[in-house]
Amino acid sequence: MASKDATREVSPDRLRVGIVGAAGYTGAELIRLIHGHPRLGLAYVAAKERAGQRLEEAVPSTSGVRGIGDRILETFDPASAPELAERCRVMFLGLPHEASAAAAEALLAAGLTVVDLSAAFRIKEATSYEPWYGHQHATALSRKAVYGLPELHRADLRGAKLIATPGCHVTSALLPLAPLLRAHLIRHDGIVIDTKTGVSGAGRSPTASKPFSETAEGTRPYKVAGNHRHTPEIEQELSLVAGAAIRVLMTPHLLPMTRGLLATCYARAEPGTTVDACRQAARSMHEEGLVTVLEGDQLPDTLHVRGSARAHVAYALDPRTGIVLAMCALDNLSRGASAEALQALNVSMGWPDGLGLPEIGLFP
Amino acid sequence: MASKDATREVSPDRLRVGIVGAAGYTGAELIRLIHGHPRLGLAYVAAKERAGQRLEEAVPSTSGVRGIGDRILETFDPASAPELAERCRVMFLGLPHEASAAAAEALLAAGLTVVDLSAAFRIKEATSYEPWYGHQHATALSRKAVYGLPELHRADLRGAKLIATPGCHVTSALLPLAPLLRAHLIRHDGIVIDTKTGVSGAGRSPTASKPFSETAEGTRPYKVAGNHRHTPEIEQELSLVAGAAIRVLMTPHLLPMTRGLLATCYARAEPGTTVDACRQAARSMHEEGLVTVLEGDQLPDTLHVRGSARAHVAYALDPRTGIVLAMCALDNLSRGASAEALQALNVSMGWPDGLGLPEIGLFP
Amino acid sequence: MASKDATREVSPDRLRVGIVGAAGYTGAELIRLIHGHPRLGLAYVAAKERAGQRLEEAVPSTSGVRGIGDRILETFDPASAPELAERCRVMFLGLPHEASAAAAEALLAAGLTVVDLSAAFRIKEATSYEPWYGHQHATALSRKAVYGLPELHRADLRGAKLIATPGCHVTSALLPLAPLLRAHLIRHDGIVIDTKTGVSGAGRSPTASKPFSETAEGTRPYKVAGNHRHTPEIEQELSLVAGAAIRVLMTPHLLPMTRGLLATCYARAEPGTTVDACRQAARSMHEEGLVTVLEGDQLPDTLHVRGSARAHVAYALDPRTGIVLAMCALDNLSRGASAEALQALNVSMGWPDGLGLPEIGLFP
Amino acid sequence: MASKDATREVSPDRLRVGIVGAAGYTGAELIRLIHGHPRLGLAYVAAKERAGQRLEEAVPSTSGVRGIGDRILETFDPASAPELAERCRVMFLGLPHEASAAAAEALLAAGLTVVDLSAAFRIKEATSYEPWYGHQHATALSRKAVYGLPELHRADLRGAKLIATPGCHVTSALLPLAPLLRAHLIRHDGIVIDTKTGVSGAGRSPTASKPFSETAEGTRPYKVAGNHRHTPEIEQELSLVAGAAIRVLMTPHLLPMTRGLLATCYARAEPGTTVDACRQAARSMHEEGLVTVLEGDQLPDTLHVRGSARAHVAYALDPRTGIVLAMCALDNLSRGASAEALQALNVSMGWPDGLGLPEIGLFP
Repeated sequence: MASKDATREVSPDRLRVGIVGAAGYTGAELIRLIHGHPRLGLAYVAAKERAGQRLEEAVPSTSGVRGIGDRILETFDPASAPELAERCRVMFLGLPHEASAAAAEALLAAGLTVVDLSAAFRIKEATSYEPWYGHQHATALSRKAVYGLPELHRADLRGAKLIATPGCHVTSALLPLAPLLRAHLIRHDGIVIDTKTGVSGAGRSPTASKPFSETAEGTRPYKVAGNHRHTPEIEQELSLVAGAAIRVLMTPHLLPMTRGLLATCYARAEPGTTVDACRQAARSMHEEGLVTVLEGDQLPDTLHVRGSARAHVAYALDPRTGIVLAMCALDNLSRGASAEALQALNVSMGWPDGLGLPEIGLFP
Repeated sequence: MASKDATREVSPDRLRVGIVGAAGYTGAELIRLIHGHPRLGLAYVAAKERAGQRLEEAVPSTSGVRGIGDRILETFDPASAPELAERCRVMFLGLPHEASAAAAEALLAAGLTVVDLSAAFRIKEATSYEPWYGHQHATALSRKAVYGLPELHRADLRGAKLIATPGCHVTSALLPLAPLLRAHLIRHDGIVIDTKTGVSGAGRSPTASKPFSETAEGTRPYKVAGNHRHTPEIEQELSLVAGAAIRVLMTPHLLPMTRGLLATCYARAEPGTTVDACRQAARSMHEEGLVTVLEGDQLPDTLHVRGSARAHVAYALDPRTGIVLAMCALDNLSRGASAEALQALNVSMGWPDGLGLPEIGLFP
Repeated sequence: MASKDATREVSPDRLRVGIVGAAGYTGAELIRLIHGHPRLGLAYVAAKERAGQRLEEAVPSTSGVRGIGDRILETFDPASAPELAERCRVMFLGLPHEASAAAAEALLAAGLTVVDLSAAFRIKEATSYEPWYGHQHATALSRKAVYGLPELHRADLRGAKLIATPGCHVTSALLPLAPLLRAHLIRHDGIVIDTKTGVSGAGRSPTASKPFSETAEGTRPYKVAGNHRHTPEIEQELSLVAGAAIRVLMTPHLLPMTRGLLATCYARAEPGTTVDACRQAARSMHEEGLVTVLEGDQLPDTLHVRGSARAHVAYALDPRTGIVLAMCALDNLSRGASAEALQALNVSMGWPDGLGLPEIGLFP
Repeated sequence: MASKDATREVSPDRLRVGIVGAAGYTGAELIRLIHGHPRLGLAYVAAKERAGQRLEEAVPSTSGVRGIGDRILETFDPASAPELAERCRVMFLGLPHEASAAAAEALLAAGLTVVDLSAAFRIKEATSYEPWYGHQHATALSRKAVYGLPELHRADLRGAKLIATPGCHVTSALLPLAPLLRAHLIRHDGIVIDTKTGVSGAGRSPTASKPFSETAEGTRPYKVAGNHRHTPEIEQELSLVAGAAIRVLMTPHLLPMTRGLLATCYARAEPGTTVDACRQAARSMHEEGLVTVLEGDQLPDTLHVRGSARAHVAYALDPRTGIVLAMCALDNLSRGASAEALQALNVSMGWPDGLGLPEIGLFP
């Protein structure tokens, strides 16, 4: 069988990993990143609607790449977790939120490490999850899961068996804001987060987003007035860092670009806060992570992180209004999803955050 | 001479208008709009660097259009204002800010109506102008000038001889915010304006913006921390409406699109404020203007106003934080510049705001 | 009823027109163009899937435009043609190819003029239609229909009751090539047509084209090796002009842009052919039409015709290989569809080709 | 010194390489690719106009990457070649065509291997170079140089000391056409090459290309009628393969995208030629190279090779006209320039073509 052959092709000194949801955009990005990682080997790919196709038919960027493009996409079934455990040690799960719990449970029971890319296990409390997602919260698994942002949960990630990869908007808000709250540089109330995202975040389904003709040359807010599901996730993590309940208003905007996420966060400065203090707080918190704190008059640009595992963070302070701007640019499919999942896996294995990950993206 | 012939070509029942700066982007948009206007005729075009060229060489969208594309671009000289007064009645001035004063003075003295597209006359006080623009303020002319936003200054515009066309970011902030302040629906402090603009606003010079390769797929803030020149202009007009000094933080962002400007404004609601009250305030203030107040769950999108003289305004209220979102989408070259200039001219002539202007843009 | 009111709103000195398929891209473009036309009034709008919606919900560029955006989209039924005849004089039909015949027949019988935007009536012979479209050809109606390219069929269009609007790729090939064949400047065999089109040509259905993320930054050929349906239509019209059977190879390419169509046509020069002779042939053939023949070293760019009813045509000759390049840029939704339909209607009414049509597009 | 430190940072088991022209687009791409290469270490970076800056100021995608972003850009001087020889073994030269000869001569004399990215050494005969480039041809060095397309010159590349990296349009034409000529599947005359390129090929200078606003939504031919400098280079290489003088017409088109190059080549089939025979010829010629020959009804798309070192090639045959379509998609900065340079270096070192190069690009 193609899949058995494929398993044999993975060199024995590499950790064998699999992907459920390999034909989606985050799946394709995982394939690209795993292919360039010196310690991982791709041993299993599954995709619901494209099962039976060769990977290169579903993900044409793999066309002609031996051992990858010629893989056959399989159908994932939690019941076959014990067999999968013989083929891989780690499974990346890119399933709908409501399907992750059963899948993760079976895989964990079979001894696999699970890196989940859905929202299923990101939120600890059912009351912060169910109103936003409309289905039952997997509370027990969620409490066992480690929130996969190494910059905030490094210690817990070492040896973690279930990793919940953060949402992309969440990462873009936490990386610049968390250091300010930890260092008491901004007030707890009145935090406004204005995010600008490329359309790939909506996923690959043709009906998930408007056609090109209604996207190019257009920009628009969506899920306004605090209606975006990433809101409770941001609040959970910022509250943890601040040691107090934090409430934010997040407004996402859709931009005419494929990849990229820029967060512009507004918060009221505590007395005495300076830009230097903000930068120092971020450098200190993100020292081991994959975050560049910009200096001088440099400002973040999603173009500077396209295809990269790094996020760029910057700060400014408006003396006229006393408002701190905390900004972050990242690639929503890479640092905001697939590279972040691999960074968390790296940390869980005791490897450096950036092992095998592209820290220099395409420019231009 | 080409130019004299051109003058003769304008039908006698049309108001003869000229454009200084015809080869720039707002110049090209003026040409398009004047060509479709039933009461105006283009009688004069000037452009500094391209003087002597045929208009179709400089503005290739006019190629082959008789009576327009075959015009010769002239060199504008304030000293020849008396001669120009024989050729046109109205002059659109698209000059650098510091050059407008001398030009406008000469043209006004010669009896022309001047519609200025620079920032020279938008701000009433030298102290609000000189620190931002770095050259001397034309205070006397600025006080004589009428701020060219018909939705706010309709009465003053009738018969106006010197019109100062607002900045594009300013228009996008004033249209949604002014009604809320007038109707006491938001608090005066803590207003945050996050704008997203297409790159055509930077003008046509190749060095005015980054190359395509460093613009596509990128988005970035610029002039952060209240450093954008449109800030004092927004504050002047909002303070006038509020009857009190208003201070705002505006942060512009550059987007990978040519046209379009979206403002997302955040303000704290006064007790009892509702979305319906916001919409009602805007409908009432903008009744005669070129503004659509969106209903239901419709949200503004720059794609819906491309090439249009209309702006789209919408409101939302986050009950969790008490923040009102006041949003506006417009075409920065059209409603944010050239169509706005024509709308103001229409009002100054006693015509309806939208006479001859495209209120339905390209979709898609 | 909304629709009756709407009919009454059309000024009596305007020709009342209706649109079937008003919510698609060519429908939206027709609405924009009719709104700016001094002799036409929109009296009826229908759309299958969005019937019952206000037009501004379906076509958001009409939002807030009184008398247009507040129209209700109706359900078109050929059986009610007699009633429609009381409401409009002309119907623009944007139906699937196979639905046009029944609709046109009923409308013609009721006395309406029909401007059809499908391919149903473009091709005269069933043998040139059925293999490409896979359903029965409406031969009788097709022979009655006038091919709606005024540059080629001006005389027949005067008074025409059934007009078949050409395909967009076809227009882009005919405008530059037909003059060369008529003037015997190129050989009949070996004509290669390489077209580059924006994605709006695929229509508004989200599944009609790939998502933005798989369109931006990508370009690809499709329907290669003579498999595009516009091939027999090009051959029919070129053969007519040449007086001999012409066979061409057309290869379309999809580009990451919304509007625009560029044709680069390659043909072998007859001995003695010069670029000047090509230009002269085109100027002579297109004198009354909406075509600009570029001079000097100017080359066509789709950017120069966005939203315009004009096409730009240019020629070059490679002395090393003896190949003539015949090039054309147009806006596929405007000159390639909706503006072309209106140009043909203008001619059928005895009006100038460009009456009420935008000959200066958006730049940039 | 920064540079000395940098040299020391390169691990001793890596081949030390330098880049002249590191701040341009191909320079930035070289940096990205070298950073991911297991056998190379970046030891030297130079850039004329940005000398003295930190690399991360000039190439912001390297921001915060230790050992790379903090490098100081130096000023390259051929006279210091002997010192450079102590710091690197290989130099990538991205200089203006006319500056490469002196630089390469000095570096070769000092014992470095030179991989040149200009056109200086691509063409063997002065008569095929000087009319197109307008300066003196470096004939002696050009004859010593190996044309850096491993798919055509594999044997000569082993141990090569001076490598001339092909032009991007040339690569896109040679990869699909050379196998057909070698296998006698197409006729020698009448070959037409229509290329579609992203704008990054014009380089980073803001005046090298039109601004974003005049590029987005536009497509246009340029250097038509055989006037593009890549023409003689294509003819040299195709003639070599065919064993006879080949003359082609190449027409490049500029597309609204950053990266990507698609060639659609038209040639007349020899009797009996089939699509399968074309594919077989290409598979056989490109077996060791970085080329995927697409099967079934797959067609190339520049989106499928963005950031990848692989090119995608496909064939089709139109039975109605007897024309073969030979198509190729590649990333002009990667497979068309920097990755190609590294592929050639790999071969020159005896390594596999794809060693350390990304064969799976970003999707989307």
